[in-house]
Amino acid sequence: MRLPDDLAIRNAESTILLIVLDGLGGLPQHDSGVTELEAARTPNMDALSRRGSMGMLLPVAPGITPGSGPGHLALFGYDPTRYVVGRGALSALGVGFDLAAGDVAVRLNLATLDEAGRIIDRRAGRPSDQEGRRIVTLLQEGVDVGDDLELFLVHEKEHRVVLVLRGEGLGAEISDTDPQATGVSPLDPVALNPESERAAEAMTRFLAQSRQLLRGEDRISGLLARGFARYEGFPSLQERFGLDGLAIARYPMYRGVARLVGMDIPGVPSSDEDAVALMEDHFGSADFHFIHFKAPDAGGEDRDFDAKVAAIEEIDLLFPRFLALDPDAIAVTGDHSTPAKMGVHSWHHVPVLLASDAARPTGDSFSEAECRRGDLGIIESKHLMSLMLAHAGRLRKFGA
Amino acid sequence: MRLPDDLAIRNAESTILLIVLDGLGGLPQHDSGVTELEAARTPNMDALSRRGSMGMLLPVAPGITPGSGPGHLALFGYDPTRYVVGRGALSALGVGFDLAAGDVAVRLNLATLDEAGRIIDRRAGRPSDQEGRRIVTLLQEGVDVGDDLELFLVHEKEHRVVLVLRGEGLGAEISDTDPQATGVSPLDPVALNPESERAAEAMTRFLAQSRQLLRGEDRISGLLARGFARYEGFPSLQERFGLDGLAIARYPMYRGVARLVGMDIPGVPSSDEDAVALMEDHFGSADFHFIHFKAPDAGGEDRDFDAKVAAIEEIDLLFPRFLALDPDAIAVTGDHSTPAKMGVHSWHHVPVLLASDAARPTGDSFSEAECRRGDLGIIESKHLMSLMLAHAGRLRKFGA
Repeated sequence: MRLPDDLAIRNAESTILLIVLDGLGGLPQHDSGVTELEAARTPNMDALSRRGSMGMLLPVAPGITPGSGPGHLALFGYDPTRYVVGRGALSALGVGFDLAAGDVAVRLNLATLDEAGRIIDRRAGRPSDQEGRRIVTLLQEGVDVGDDLELFLVHEKEHRVVLVLRGEGLGAEISDTDPQATGVSPLDPVALNPESERAAEAMTRFLAQSRQLLRGEDRISGLLARGFARYEGFPSLQERFGLDGLAIARYPMYRGVARLVGMDIPGVPSSDEDAVALMEDHFGSADFHFIHFKAPDAGGEDRDFDAKVAAIEEIDLLFPRFLALDPDAIAVTGDHSTPAKMGVHSWHHVPVLLASDAARPTGDSFSEAECRRGDLGIIESKHLMSLMLAHAGRLRKFGA
Repeated sequence: MRLPDDLAIRNAESTILLIVLDGLGGLPQHDSGVTELEAARTPNMDALSRRGSMGMLLPVAPGITPGSGPGHLALFGYDPTRYVVGRGALSALGVGFDLAAGDVAVRLNLATLDEAGRIIDRRAGRPSDQEGRRIVTLLQEGVDVGDDLELFLVHEKEHRVVLVLRGEGLGAEISDTDPQATGVSPLDPVALNPESERAAEAMTRFLAQSRQLLRGEDRISGLLARGFARYEGFPSLQERFGLDGLAIARYPMYRGVARLVGMDIPGVPSSDEDAVALMEDHFGSADFHFIHFKAPDAGGEDRDFDAKVAAIEEIDLLFPRFLALDPDAIAVTGDHSTPAKMGVHSWHHVPVLLASDAARPTGDSFSEAECRRGDLGIIESKHLMSLMLAHAGRLRKFGA
């Protein structure tokens, strides 16, 4: 028996609401000695903490800083060390591309080559998004790799493009064509096992056709591929936990991770206000509702303590509307910490608050200090799903 | 190295006393904001806490509510996700039947069939225990499955009976005969692999003989079997930890789980008072003494906060007698939580107190609040045995 994989699910009429404040955890930075969350005035979350169990989440393992993908997968009950999303797949998901199981994805760089075909600039002088998209359209419309395969190109940002190959029985053990150096030619894509030969041959045809299509372009004259990965597909929240999931997020990356585990996406909100309204419109049409707020992480990444504090305070103002939806269990946490003091994601524990009729309250404010001495202790993020299910009456007893 | 399986045991002349208050952990329910244990006046346990280490036990995993079987196995140092007791086996143990390794156990329902042999009532109108026992005696005395096999029938309650087949080389991959529906006939027991054919054939003979014996009964005219399970036997406390164990419990289920790990049962007490007297009579004849009190769980199951508080207070009064036995290590805890607010077992952490000369005291009362900030932290219940052994000087150093 492996947990949370082998949970004994009970069907129930209950709703779970997971509110993610991206990058929530912080560090004390000023003389006051308090973190961003501790500095923020959060009367609504504080009130909720008085009827919730608090604790700290460990996203992956001590000292390990997660990306947003693993951070969220863990919150959804997917062990992030087992359910690994390849870089190409994450990029595709990040730009909203609908990956299917068996797809092979790879990251492409738009690059500048000289007349002899040697790399001059691995990023083609970081073209504008407009320029990048023009090239991607040119290539997408001009190539045909045949062999009953589909090929999709998705522009990500500047010189970054994702390529997806779709067809039966494709392998992805293919060597990078990016030599990660200038003054040399791109390498050929080489299949490293027999199963990957078909995809490698398609890549070879695609690169040859691209060279023709890019003839005449002065800056973007070549492509570099790295990180071939086959996307295996994940079991859904419905398959694993009996949950219909609904995700509301302004940014594509988070909708992508939610789609990865089978959640529905009812729309694309243009503001946090809009996101809550969208949730209100759809609340109860699913069992598990996930809403994502980016601003705390953005403040952290900008090294702006006050901006992160303000972002948390603004989200706090939305809580009366969440409570009015009357979910049976409501969890508030982050996918990782982003201390403004560091300006990047970090490995630090993330405060979590889980409110329901079965909570064991221990404090009167939602903060690192209170969560540290909360009833839940320090638990791996992947176990939050078991707890949310338990608090929503959706788990059976184990053994007689 | 897997723990607590690969402990390096040291033989020592020391005694361990494990006192289990069934369903001990609770939830705050009233305005006072305290749990049952926190509300109870427990001067003796509080005094013990001042010379003990406190902490919280996680019976299985976050969010997982254990049954009594897994809850106790974990306290005895058996990982409840690895040492799984089948339902038939637990039922047999629960009614005090002495299962042996290799036995095949199955749950039987006494049922009502019509003249064409179709099921009218899968529970035979829930017969009285007296009526159930009469039928079980009738069947037990009348059947003979031959083939060098023994067959035992144990009446559990109302329509519920446990059947045990004993003999060499029996498999239990046998389909249920209970179609879980009325208006249809019971199914035949079918062996799902060659190893299970002998047991399936014996069941077929048993069911044919039973039909003859039940001819003339108006209400209990058929039997439905489900959940065939082979009982593999567990390694004993002696084999795993070098401990002779002695268990004192008023209810058969708990004696059964103790017998499962090789503990001796010196008698069947008729009251908690009687249970302590039995322990006093036998204390020191074993290394590991386990005493079980049911009343806190019963109060919790009855949703009766005050009854659970009173049950805990009454057990507290027995502590001077436990201390007079002068065990080297004394642990006080529960197999799981049963909050009166919920009326059922729950997943919440269970307070634990472990007193010995090697304790690190942190508080002055035995409560969820003190245990939450205790020295032991939150540990899986299966590790309590390692700690009890350590506190009793029964573990060797790991490594040089």
